[in-house]
Amino acid sequence: MNNLLADKLFRETGADALVVTQEDLAFYLTGFQSSFGVVVVDGDGAKFYTDQRYLEAARANAAPGFEVLEYPRGVKLGELLKGYKSLGVSLQKSFASEYIALNEAGFALKDSTPVFERAMAVKTQKEMQSISAACLAADKAFLSLLPEIKEGMTENDVAALLEYLMRKNGASGTSFSTICAFGANASVPHHETDMTRLKFGDIILIDFGCKVGGYCSDCTRTLLFGDDGKHGEFKEAYGRVLEAHMLVKSEFTSGMTGREGDAIARDCLAKYGLDKYFTHSLGHGIGINIHEYPNLSPKSEQVFADGMVFSDEPGVYFEGAFGVRIEDTVTLKDGKVVSLTDTDKSLTIL
Amino acid sequence: MNNLLADKLFRETGADALVVTQEDLAFYLTGFQSSFGVVVVDGDGAKFYTDQRYLEAARANAAPGFEVLEYPRGVKLGELLKGYKSLGVSLQKSFASEYIALNEAGFALKDSTPVFERAMAVKTQKEMQSISAACLAADKAFLSLLPEIKEGMTENDVAALLEYLMRKNGASGTSFSTICAFGANASVPHHETDMTRLKFGDIILIDFGCKVGGYCSDCTRTLLFGDDGKHGEFKEAYGRVLEAHMLVKSEFTSGMTGREGDAIARDCLAKYGLDKYFTHSLGHGIGINIHEYPNLSPKSEQVFADGMVFSDEPGVYFEGAFGVRIEDTVTLKDGKVVSLTDTDKSLTIL
Repeated sequence: MNNLLADKLFRETGADALVVTQEDLAFYLTGFQSSFGVVVVDGDGAKFYTDQRYLEAARANAAPGFEVLEYPRGVKLGELLKGYKSLGVSLQKSFASEYIALNEAGFALKDSTPVFERAMAVKTQKEMQSISAACLAADKAFLSLLPEIKEGMTENDVAALLEYLMRKNGASGTSFSTICAFGANASVPHHETDMTRLKFGDIILIDFGCKVGGYCSDCTRTLLFGDDGKHGEFKEAYGRVLEAHMLVKSEFTSGMTGREGDAIARDCLAKYGLDKYFTHSLGHGIGINIHEYPNLSPKSEQVFADGMVFSDEPGVYFEGAFGVRIEDTVTLKDGKVVSLTDTDKSLTIL
Repeated sequence: MNNLLADKLFRETGADALVVTQEDLAFYLTGFQSSFGVVVVDGDGAKFYTDQRYLEAARANAAPGFEVLEYPRGVKLGELLKGYKSLGVSLQKSFASEYIALNEAGFALKDSTPVFERAMAVKTQKEMQSISAACLAADKAFLSLLPEIKEGMTENDVAALLEYLMRKNGASGTSFSTICAFGANASVPHHETDMTRLKFGDIILIDFGCKVGGYCSDCTRTLLFGDDGKHGEFKEAYGRVLEAHMLVKSEFTSGMTGREGDAIARDCLAKYGLDKYFTHSLGHGIGINIHEYPNLSPKSEQVFADGMVFSDEPGVYFEGAFGVRIEDTVTLKDGKVVSLTDTDKSLTIL
C-alpha cells in the first residue's frame, strides 16, 4: 500500500524515511486536516498516525494508499521511528526541540523543505479547483459587500460582513484575518482592523481571503467612499499602482525569476518616483498556506513555472495620509499570467 | 529605556540576551501584533525590530520601554546579535533551521520556553480584561444566534452567522475556525464544518471562540434541534457530561495539578462507564494562543494557580451516532474556578 505523491517526495528527499509532523505538510500529503498527525513514508508504504479525535474521519477521508493508525500514546517520535538511520524532515517547519530530540536519538536528519516547496508550488488540477473556488467565493462576497457599505459602519463591521459573505459563498473560513482600513489607516500596509467609522470621502482598503477545500485566496481592493474632491494625489497614485499591477500581468512569464517579476512593478513605479513608497515585495506563493514558496521580491532567484499560484500586489503608502494596494491571486498557464480573483480594478467610488 | 516584563523574562532566562522571533511571544512582550518582528532584550534595554510595513504602527503602539527599529535588510539574525555569547530562545517555538543557524554562528542557546510558559499562564489584569471581553462577545453572539437557527441551514451557514455575530459584538476575528456539527457529525470531536443541512431532531454541536485585543475565548455547546423522541441515550450522556463539567468547576482548586483536574471529570464519567468515550484531555490553557500551557490531561503535573485561564471541556463520542461536549473558558480566582463563558448549559431544545 502506498501513496504516489508521498512515495515521490520520500524518494526525492533521499532518507530512510520521510517524516512529517506539520499540519500543512501532512494535509498536503494525506488530503486530511488535523491538528495532530504524523506521516511516515518509507520504501514499503505511507502511514498516517493521528489521535482518537481524528481517527474516524481520517480513515474515511485520507488519500488512497495511506494506512491510518492511532499514534501510540506516550511513545516519543524517536521511539516510533526506531530502525531508521536517516530521516527526511522539514528543518524550516520543525521546531528546534523536535530537531534536538531526533538528533540526540541518533538519526541523521536531512532537510525535506526544498522537496516540499517545489512540489507544493505547482498545483495539481484538484488543488487548482479548490483555489479557484476560494477566489470565486471571495469575488462574489466582495461584490455583494459593496452595496452594503454605509457611512458610520466600523472597519470591523465591514470585515465581519465580508467574512460572513465569503462563508455564505462556500468558504470554510478566512485565509487570514481580514484587513479593513478607512482613511489614513490605509497608509499602514498591515493595519489592524479596528472600530474606526466610515465617513464621506474616506479611502477604503480591504485585504481579504478565504479557504475552500483547505486552499487560500488573497485579494486587495482600494476604493473611495464618495468623492470629496480632495483626492487628486490618491487618484494619481491609484492609476500608477494599477499600471504596475497590470504590467506584471502582461509581462511576467513562466521561466522568469521572482526578482524579475518584482522588478516589473518596481521599475514601473520608479518612473513616477513612487518606488520608495512601495515598501514590501510584489507577491508570495499561495496554496494551503497564505504565504508560501515562491516569492516575488527583489532578492528572489526562484524560477516561476506553469501551475504556480501567487499574488500580484504592488502598493504605495504615504505615512499618515493614504495608501493604495491592488492585489489579485494569479496563476501561470501556458507561460502567461491568468487572474484567479478578478473583480473590477478601475477606481470604484461608492 | 527598558520594559519591565521583558527585563524580568530576560533575567529569568539567564542568557546574555533574550531573543524572540515568534509572533505570539513578540506580541506578549510588546503588546504589538505583526507577522515579522524580532525582540532583543539585554541588560541595557529592550529593542523591537520590524519591517517597514509595521514601523509606523509599532512606534505608536508598542509597550513602553521598547525601542522600535527597522530590521536591517539582508542582515542575518546571527549578525544582528553579534557580540552576545549566549542567547535565550524558545526551542519549542523556534524552527530547527533558525536553531541550526544560531548554533553554527557560535551562540550558546538556552531554552526560554519554560520562562515564557510560566509567565504567560498567569494573566495580568489587562490580559484578563481582553479574555473576559472575548468570552462576553462569544456569549452574546451565541445567544443571538440561537433564534436564527432554522431547518435546512448548513453547518457552514450557522458557523458563518456565529462568526459574523462575534465580530459584531466586538471581536477582531475567531480564535479558531468554528466547528459546527449536525447529527452524527457530532461524534467526530474535531469535525470539519461542512454543507450538511439541519433537520428536525438533529444534535447540534458548536465549538467556537473569538479574539478581543489579541486574546482568545473558547466555548462549546451541544443542543437538540427539536425533540424527535429518539434521544434517550443522548440525553443521558448529556447529563453525565454536564455533571463531569460542573464537578470540575466545584472541585478543582488552585494548587492542584492538571492531572488531578482531568481525573475529576474522568472519574465522574467512569462511574457511568463513559470514560472510554472521553477520548481527549479535559482542557488546555487559553491566552494569546487558543492552546497553550498549562494542560489538564492524565499526564499533566503542571500546577494550577490563580490567574490562569483554561478550558473545562469533557466530552463523549459514539462513532457514527452522536457526541456531546460541554466547554467553558474558566479562570482560577481566590483558589476557585470562575466561569468566563457562561451561557446556559442545561440541555437546550430549539
